[in-house]
Amino acid sequence: MDKLIYIIPAVSVLGLLFALILAMRVKKQDPGTDRMKEIAASIHEGATAFLFSEYKIIVIFVAVIFLAIGFGIGNWLEAVCFLVGALFSVAAGFFGMQVATLANVRTANAAKEKGMAKALSVAFSGGAVMGLCVAGFGLLGISAIYAITKNADVLFGFSLGASSIALFARVGGGIYTKAADVGADLVGKVEAGIPEDDPRNPAVVADNVGDNVGDVAGMGADLFESYGGAVISAMTLGLAFTKNMPGKEIYGLLFPLCIAAIGLLSSIIGTFFVRGDKNPAKSLKVGTYVASAAVLVAALVLSYVMFGSVYFGVTIVAGLIVGVLIGQFTEVYTSDAYKSVKKIAKQSETGSATNIISGIAVGFQSTAVTIVLICIGIFISFFFGSKAGLNGGIYGIALAAVGMLSTTGITVAVDAYGPIADNAGGIAEMSGLDKSVRSITDKLDSVGNTTAAMGKGFAIGSAALTALALFFSYRDAVSLQNIDILDYSVVIGLLIGGMLPFIFSAFTMESVSKAAYQMIAEVRRQFREIPGILEGTGKPDYKTCVAISTKASLREMIVPGILAVAVPILVGCLLGINALGGLLAGSLVTGVLLAIFMSNAGGAWDNAKKYIETGNHGGKGSESHKAAVVGDTVGDPFKDTSGPSINILIKLMTIVSLVFAPIFLKIGEGAGLIEWLAQR
Amino acid sequence: MDKLIYIIPAVSVLGLLFALILAMRVKKQDPGTDRMKEIAASIHEGATAFLFSEYKIIVIFVAVIFLAIGFGIGNWLEAVCFLVGALFSVAAGFFGMQVATLANVRTANAAKEKGMAKALSVAFSGGAVMGLCVAGFGLLGISAIYAITKNADVLFGFSLGASSIALFARVGGGIYTKAADVGADLVGKVEAGIPEDDPRNPAVVADNVGDNVGDVAGMGADLFESYGGAVISAMTLGLAFTKNMPGKEIYGLLFPLCIAAIGLLSSIIGTFFVRGDKNPAKSLKVGTYVASAAVLVAALVLSYVMFGSVYFGVTIVAGLIVGVLIGQFTEVYTSDAYKSVKKIAKQSETGSATNIISGIAVGFQSTAVTIVLICIGIFISFFFGSKAGLNGGIYGIALAAVGMLSTTGITVAVDAYGPIADNAGGIAEMSGLDKSVRSITDKLDSVGNTTAAMGKGFAIGSAALTALALFFSYRDAVSLQNIDILDYSVVIGLLIGGMLPFIFSAFTMESVSKAAYQMIAEVRRQFREIPGILEGTGKPDYKTCVAISTKASLREMIVPGILAVAVPILVGCLLGINALGGLLAGSLVTGVLLAIFMSNAGGAWDNAKKYIETGNHGGKGSESHKAAVVGDTVGDPFKDTSGPSINILIKLMTIVSLVFAPIFLKIGEGAGLIEWLAQR
Repeated sequence: MDKLIYIIPAVSVLGLLFALILAMRVKKQDPGTDRMKEIAASIHEGATAFLFSEYKIIVIFVAVIFLAIGFGIGNWLEAVCFLVGALFSVAAGFFGMQVATLANVRTANAAKEKGMAKALSVAFSGGAVMGLCVAGFGLLGISAIYAITKNADVLFGFSLGASSIALFARVGGGIYTKAADVGADLVGKVEAGIPEDDPRNPAVVADNVGDNVGDVAGMGADLFESYGGAVISAMTLGLAFTKNMPGKEIYGLLFPLCIAAIGLLSSIIGTFFVRGDKNPAKSLKVGTYVASAAVLVAALVLSYVMFGSVYFGVTIVAGLIVGVLIGQFTEVYTSDAYKSVKKIAKQSETGSATNIISGIAVGFQSTAVTIVLICIGIFISFFFGSKAGLNGGIYGIALAAVGMLSTTGITVAVDAYGPIADNAGGIAEMSGLDKSVRSITDKLDSVGNTTAAMGKGFAIGSAALTALALFFSYRDAVSLQNIDILDYSVVIGLLIGGMLPFIFSAFTMESVSKAAYQMIAEVRRQFREIPGILEGTGKPDYKTCVAISTKASLREMIVPGILAVAVPILVGCLLGINALGGLLAGSLVTGVLLAIFMSNAGGAWDNAKKYIETGNHGGKGSESHKAAVVGDTVGDPFKDTSGPSINILIKLMTIVSLVFAPIFLKIGEGAGLIEWLAQR
Repeated sequence: MDKLIYIIPAVSVLGLLFALILAMRVKKQDPGTDRMKEIAASIHEGATAFLFSEYKIIVIFVAVIFLAIGFGIGNWLEAVCFLVGALFSVAAGFFGMQVATLANVRTANAAKEKGMAKALSVAFSGGAVMGLCVAGFGLLGISAIYAITKNADVLFGFSLGASSIALFARVGGGIYTKAADVGADLVGKVEAGIPEDDPRNPAVVADNVGDNVGDVAGMGADLFESYGGAVISAMTLGLAFTKNMPGKEIYGLLFPLCIAAIGLLSSIIGTFFVRGDKNPAKSLKVGTYVASAAVLVAALVLSYVMFGSVYFGVTIVAGLIVGVLIGQFTEVYTSDAYKSVKKIAKQSETGSATNIISGIAVGFQSTAVTIVLICIGIFISFFFGSKAGLNGGIYGIALAAVGMLSTTGITVAVDAYGPIADNAGGIAEMSGLDKSVRSITDKLDSVGNTTAAMGKGFAIGSAALTALALFFSYRDAVSLQNIDILDYSVVIGLLIGGMLPFIFSAFTMESVSKAAYQMIAEVRRQFREIPGILEGTGKPDYKTCVAISTKASLREMIVPGILAVAVPILVGCLLGINALGGLLAGSLVTGVLLAIFMSNAGGAWDNAKKYIETGNHGGKGSESHKAAVVGDTVGDPFKDTSGPSINILIKLMTIVSLVFAPIFLKIGEGAGLIEWLAQR
């Protein structure tokens, strides 16, 4: 059984090879007319340019952390693992986004030449490359490092590397996409009165680039981080669980790795079930369900084979099912098929204020289901884990996170499919393709909106469980028997930690405002200065808009980025390991809640507006519609920037605390500098 | 020294006598013209009618809890204390509001006949009656019960009684005031185009009633609860601290009582410093500072006399100063003299959406200062408390809460002054008094807006410290050495507890919408059906509007009320005392944060609108103004209903857990029913 440790990297490579095949198949498709190729090239170039600019900042950040781990903790092996984690996350994001920016135009052309079924297939294949890259690179990095070093603790370095990239990809990408979106909409749609995705709008390319850098690369890095964090944390907690079982010493470590490998293979199988032209929404769901079912069966069998009982298999299944359910229930609050969105639409009749109040109330309400589902997942996995033996409960919770993320390959694929379909629609519009083409891409895009909302719910749920699993590892790392909620320093930590997601969100929201403001000024300038631009005879300068979004988003992500890394280190050094434990708990609780609130309120506002646009409550152009547009605009940074960025914050702060724990332990024996001084 | 226990009730009676003198002095003032008297009578009747309707619901609720304590826990003495707590809170609220509804019209008349100085004096005297009733009845109840029973533990019954009344007064009052306000504004100001407080508006009386039931009675009950909770919790923790000190066995219990008594006397002294016509804002501050300074000196001296060191005096001072600073810093985020409000006003130029985003960002940011101040208060009081002896740290934190609330008499006076001045302005407008009168009442009212925002910050800060102090008592009551943040049931509790303030706020926000909707329908009906109403010849039917607000707010407060009581009991019974500890911590953290966010965002939106109305960014009627009105309307339920109601939620859940702890301890030895079943 121990040989498995060499088989798992092979499975990861298999997954990456399959991604390569899909990528080549996408590339082989016809990208359409010259006009389409030209637009697609602009998007591709813009997205790639953003990544390379981002890398310049990341290199500095990564170098600082690398040296901090090496010199500060003296663990150069962990520092190297950190580098590998960062590199693998970059690789996954880079390849995934390259293919996404090839798939968008080919999806548009497939819709034009071959219809819905083929368009769905191309768009989904593009997304699947991202999904398989995330799972493949993640699993390869983790399993190969362990196979080579046989040291599980240094893997947290890998996790920190993944987190660092996720921070910049999610925050920077989130700011980019909304600055471009708001800028394009406000001047183009509202002031100049030209339709969405109109080629006369100079910000339109930046808007489409934003979908790729935010919703493909950013989302991918987010889940890469969760995936790595969950698997690594389960490996180390599992190792502690089985280390005294003769002949099974590393089974606790192998089990989550095997589940991840099975999940990767199941995801590949799942991709074959996404096909047809009848009902793309159902088709995407079937793919996910098939993959989940495969993992479910395998987890129970493997648990029985390795541990002699199905208990740990049940914890995997619990996580898996909770993840799927969170997605489903997110739909209830964000889809116009249900009453919440309809209520917001109705409240738009009495103006923007009632639309806003109603959306905030829906967002607040929606926290209940997700939280209760997460709690049920924690209870079941702890309960069955405990049945398997002492300390099995905590291992069980970590395994639930692994279970939830085991099908990351296909979950990310479905999620990344959305922005590809969205881009395809934009390209069709900009290239002046026939209305029938637009109607296919619109259909695919609207499915993508729902899967995006579900994907956000899943990303939050998995971030919560991952952060919790890493939190258990933190406690082990600082050797605390317990972290007493009523220790005064824990209380202080709880309050400060609880506050951080609020401050972080305030920063990211203001960043979007500032970046959008620059974009608005530029678009106005072009409308004013370029002759014939609105008549379609003058050519808009797309590149300057892309450059503005890139520069502004990268500048704006620095402060929240530093905040996320510096605060836990400061608290750990000044107030000690107990206060830091409180901080992690506080930020976990308010972070998860704020993220759910912001994502779902944003999604609900978006769909309330769309619901009105389909002719309800007065339809497009009515007073209700104007009120709903206000809600949608408020919801944009909520759901695409601030909400998802919180996922990163809570995971990153936990992994930073974990990796730098040896330093905190040295200061006043873990009590922190202030306490140490106070005792003098 | 032990004789003090009989002197303290006497001091409380002294405070109440002074309140009586002030009340008679207010009543003696001339209520002005017949028209003024008539309007004032309507407001007075409406407010009193609301209270009596509310009492009908409270009686049922109180009876249920009374029997639950008596039969469920078998402690009939505590059940009786519960009744006394409820009755005393009702008494404070009733007398305070009666006088407030006498003071409003007399303030208007004083402004008319004698100018600013006299008007300020009458309005503040009215508020001071509320303040001294809160502190006087609170201290009398607590000290008398202990003097008679010599049993400190039954005092938690008193605290629960106070909390139960606060729940209905704050939630019901909050819904009432905003339903009436929104209803009056939306149909009157926006649709019919008549000014605020115009007598032709049928909802105008209900609007003025709302100020009294929400901002006077509701706020008073909120602080009565904090005051009682802080003092009682400090008494019991203090008793545990000194019980083994020969000759000083009850010093730990006496100290907070003495501080409260000193605070009451200092508040009376402080009221003499509120005078003059130059600068009412400064005058109110001077009164508060004088009272605080008196407590500060006395606390240090008393601490030295009783404990031989100033350490516990320092903890009182820390709480006192933090309370004052929270108020000051709240002003920074909610007053148009500072940049946050100015920024929101500027963002209104680009529409409602940017106004909303900007306001939410300001609200989020504002959490930092309050949280850091609370944390500093906790650190200092724990640190100095610990220096005084083992377990002195926790006692120190409870004392900080007492210190913060010691000047409740004058703090509530300043807070209650606001709605009285606001009412006075309304009465002046409705009675068609001269513009010069309006300008005096406007000046007083604008000061009231600032003190209201500061008062809200203070209410949140004191609620946080009180809930924390009660939380320590909870841990003692369930005999837990520690509540481990990473125990799986604590994690579940944390998440559920964190969620509750979100759900609770969603409920209260929707309640305002529903109640306002009914009010809107009624005002529209009257405008349509009563001939000559808009020309001033037909007489609007104020009473029906008052009745609608009353009925709707009482109906809407039931569900959130049940939620606040039922959830901790359910969690305690089903998941056990550890999970319940997690729940209290979770709700404390997110509750405090959400309350700060909602109160400050609401205050900032309100003042951004007013800032524009004074001629900035286009002034009244401009597009910026319209956008700012949207923010103000969203902010209304934020700052006056949902935000303040959360204070009650976190305190009430803690005291419910504490009082019903004996029941939870019986179920599966405190592990809860589910765990007990799971172990079978």
